[in-house]
Amino acid sequence: MSKTDRHIAMPVIRRLPRYYRCLCNMEQNGIEKISSRALAEAMNITASQVRQDLNCFGGFGQQGYGYIVSMLRGEIAKLLGMDSKKKTVLYGVGNLGRAIIYHFDFEKFGFELCGLFDTNPELVGTELGGLIISDDEELEKFTEDHTVDAAILCIPTTSAEEVVEKLYAAGVRCFLNFNHFDIKSRYPDCVVENVHLSESLMTLGYLMTDKSNSAEE
Amino acid sequence: MSKTDRHIAMPVIRRLPRYYRCLCNMEQNGIEKISSRALAEAMNITASQVRQDLNCFGGFGQQGYGYIVSMLRGEIAKLLGMDSKKKTVLYGVGNLGRAIIYHFDFEKFGFELCGLFDTNPELVGTELGGLIISDDEELEKFTEDHTVDAAILCIPTTSAEEVVEKLYAAGVRCFLNFNHFDIKSRYPDCVVENVHLSESLMTLGYLMTDKSNSAEE
Repeated sequence: MSKTDRHIAMPVIRRLPRYYRCLCNMEQNGIEKISSRALAEAMNITASQVRQDLNCFGGFGQQGYGYIVSMLRGEIAKLLGMDSKKKTVLYGVGNLGRAIIYHFDFEKFGFELCGLFDTNPELVGTELGGLIISDDEELEKFTEDHTVDAAILCIPTTSAEEVVEKLYAAGVRCFLNFNHFDIKSRYPDCVVENVHLSESLMTLGYLMTDKSNSAEE
Repeated sequence: MSKTDRHIAMPVIRRLPRYYRCLCNMEQNGIEKISSRALAEAMNITASQVRQDLNCFGGFGQQGYGYIVSMLRGEIAKLLGMDSKKKTVLYGVGNLGRAIIYHFDFEKFGFELCGLFDTNPELVGTELGGLIISDDEELEKFTEDHTVDAAILCIPTTSAEEVVEKLYAAGVRCFLNFNHFDIKSRYPDCVVENVHLSESLMTLGYLMTDKSNSAEE
C-alpha cells in the first residue's frame, strides 16, 4: 500500500486512526485474517466503504480472501507516520496541556515530545514528564539547538496569534491546535490539525435532540 | 428550518458547530447577510456543499439572495439544542476533566453542569467551578434527587465499563466519552459522542507525511 498522488478526502484520513485502533484490538484478540465485511462491522461503516477507503492508498487485501490483520495494521501505521520520530514542542502546560502530556503515547505515534513552554512564571523551571518547562522567551534559543517538527498548542485563542508567529519564525510548520485561531488562513503553507473540543459537546447536543442519528461515522 | 425525518450523515452534523462558530464571527463583525459562496469560503468547503448541508434541515436562504446571518445562526443553535438545559454530570476530575470544566461554556451550548464525580479520596468533598466533587458511590442518591440527562466521561478506559454500567442503571443514556470503551456496542439505545484525542495526533502524523492534504474539511 503506497500513497498515491491524488488528493485523499479528510474523512478517509480521519478514519485511519480508527482502522489502526480496530486492527490493534483484533491483533490482541488473536485474529490473524479479516474480511472487509468484518472490518466494516467493527468500524461501524459499510464493507464497500472499507474497500473504497483502503483503495485510496493503492488498495490492499485479496478478493475473496480479506486482509492479514498484522500487515494491514503495519501499513496503516506507516501511512500515519508512526515509523518516524517528529520532534514536538507543547505550548501551554495548563490542564489540557497536562492531560496531553500524560495521556498521549507520543513515541508510539511517531512523535517525540522534546520541549514544554509556558508563560506562567510559577511553572517555568519546574519539571513535568521528564522535561523542564521553559519560558516562552527561550523558544528562539531552543529552536537553534533543536529542529522542531511540530507544535501542540494548548493555549487560549487570545495568545495563539503571537505564539504561532514566533513558532513560524522559528521554522515550525506543523501544528496540533486546540484553540480557535485559524493558522492556515494566516500561514497557508502550514500543516494544521485543529481540535475544537467544545464542538463535541455541541454535536452531542444535536444528537440528544435528534436521536435517530448515531455518532462515530 | 426544521429537522426532517431522513437520516443525516454525521459529517454534515459535525459541520454544524463550525457553521455556528463562523456565523457568530460574522455577526460580531457586523455582517448581516451572506451568500453561500462566502459562507463556503469561510468554512473552507464548496458553495454546493453549504447548500446541500443546509438543505438537509429543510433548506434555508433564498436563491440569489443568500442567508441572513443572525437568523441562520439562530436556527443552527436550535438544531444543536442550545435552547435547552440538559443536566449533565462529569466523571473524572483529573487534568482533562478540569480542562473541560474550566473551558466549556456549558450554558451557552444548552447544558447545565450539575455534578462532579471522582474516586480519588483527596478530591472528593473539595470544590471546583462552584460544585462539590462527589464520590462515585453517591451517584445513586444523586440521580434520585436530580434528573441527569448526560454524562461526560473523563476517566480511563479501564474504569469506563463500571462507570457506564452505574450511569446506565441510573437512567443516563447520553454520553460525551473521552475513552476507548465502546458504549454503543454494549448499550445500543445510548446517544454517544466519542472523542479520541490521540487520533488528532495520528491525523497530524498522516498530514505531516502527506503534505498535499490539508486539514479541517
